[in-house]
Amino acid sequence: MLFFDKLRAAQATTGAALCVGLDPDPARLPAPLADLPAHEAVVRFNRAIVEATADIACAYKPNLAFYEALGTDGWRALEATLEAIPENRLTIADGKRGDIGNTAKRYAAAFFDTLGVDAVTVTPYMGRDAIRPFLDAAHGCAFVLVATSNPSGADLQDIVFESRPVHAHVADLAVETAADAPGSVGFVVGATRPEILTALRWAHPNVPFLVPGVGAQGGSAEAVLDANAGGPLLVNSSRGILYASSGDDFAEAARTAAQALAATLPV
Amino acid sequence: MLFFDKLRAAQATTGAALCVGLDPDPARLPAPLADLPAHEAVVRFNRAIVEATADIACAYKPNLAFYEALGTDGWRALEATLEAIPENRLTIADGKRGDIGNTAKRYAAAFFDTLGVDAVTVTPYMGRDAIRPFLDAAHGCAFVLVATSNPSGADLQDIVFESRPVHAHVADLAVETAADAPGSVGFVVGATRPEILTALRWAHPNVPFLVPGVGAQGGSAEAVLDANAGGPLLVNSSRGILYASSGDDFAEAARTAAQALAATLPV
Repeated sequence: MLFFDKLRAAQATTGAALCVGLDPDPARLPAPLADLPAHEAVVRFNRAIVEATADIACAYKPNLAFYEALGTDGWRALEATLEAIPENRLTIADGKRGDIGNTAKRYAAAFFDTLGVDAVTVTPYMGRDAIRPFLDAAHGCAFVLVATSNPSGADLQDIVFESRPVHAHVADLAVETAADAPGSVGFVVGATRPEILTALRWAHPNVPFLVPGVGAQGGSAEAVLDANAGGPLLVNSSRGILYASSGDDFAEAARTAAQALAATLPV
Repeated sequence: MLFFDKLRAAQATTGAALCVGLDPDPARLPAPLADLPAHEAVVRFNRAIVEATADIACAYKPNLAFYEALGTDGWRALEATLEAIPENRLTIADGKRGDIGNTAKRYAAAFFDTLGVDAVTVTPYMGRDAIRPFLDAAHGCAFVLVATSNPSGADLQDIVFESRPVHAHVADLAVETAADAPGSVGFVVGATRPEILTALRWAHPNVPFLVPGVGAQGGSAEAVLDANAGGPLLVNSSRGILYASSGDDFAEAARTAAQALAATLPV
């Protein structure tokens, strides 16, 4: 099934644009898991979170840094995590990869073939030929970093060239690169700057946006929905859901937090 | 030992700026390894290459894409590869990572603590706070992508802002971010555009440059040395050395190719 169709089907079931970020920080895992080896704790934690939220979230986005930090065991924990996610939910490997063509091909193989995810995140600093290999997977989507949610995102992304900021050029570049693979490209646009989201949505009405930065980073779900104007959308929350409680009730607390956020993100 | 001191010591021994890129592509591994499972073939191949070149190369740079493509087994193969590299040679994890602060910290832990490499490559699209956590490792170095060797590198990197290209701004940004951690930052500058290397070296005489793109990508070692004007330097070659022969003699052929290139890169 094409990414776009799977997104639509998942959102028709859950009724919300919520994506849950699976970013397990060993220092913040709940007390009941504290005595396990880190990689086992991560798998148990993720399974409990997925189980508690699978009827609410349409997608899950593991950020690979949290797995790589545990070495080989961490990579295995990532595989086990992906196995625990229901087939009809989207999986997004958030690795922000980007490299020259022959290398980017190996990354695309790593994520779409070996890990078997539905989508990846890609960084655009190396230009079109670092993006292109991620668009060749038959059923996948590459979310290109356009305007990020972190404070220093503006350092490069807001540089103005020919009357438009770099992030607007990157958005065009991504879409042009995907000209013969429509539906295979999306944008990462941070929730912390809804005015950019508005401008990008106006220019690209049909491109899926993956929007991190609500909750811990300060973005508001309402402002995102408003700026998005009904385009294809995934809004990610990680810390606000994962660490809603540090006690025995962490999974129920995550469910409650996910429900509350999902209620503000109707599709 | 600080990265800079280790670089100097390694180059004093080998007499050359050569870094060997360990980018094992399963489709190109030599015939004698063809029947092994991919991850075993990769480890055997890398060990043979390291053994054949350790008195010539001062550094080794595995590009992580080639390991991640093999999943958990690939990550284990990466760890085994790093173990095979002599203590007094530099190791550079080429992952071109970059993410928001709390996540970048996990990547820094993955590479400097769990894998134990001497240096990493970092992508600057998310600005200063995506670079900063990589500079906090006591003995490591973060090579920030400044001007890359691929054809579409210019898409973003050559955009002119306030009379200077984006890559010059990125170089300044990287150095400013490292103001309180001198010696912890380097630049990736492609060999394919020596005029950029000249300009960056003029502006940053003491920053280590990691220069890919000689050989298969078309850059010339002579032009790089000329442009570099005696600054701290590592010149990477991957395919030209790894795949010098596809037969039984692959390790000897790699050694011969490494010797030939090293002879053009005296320090």
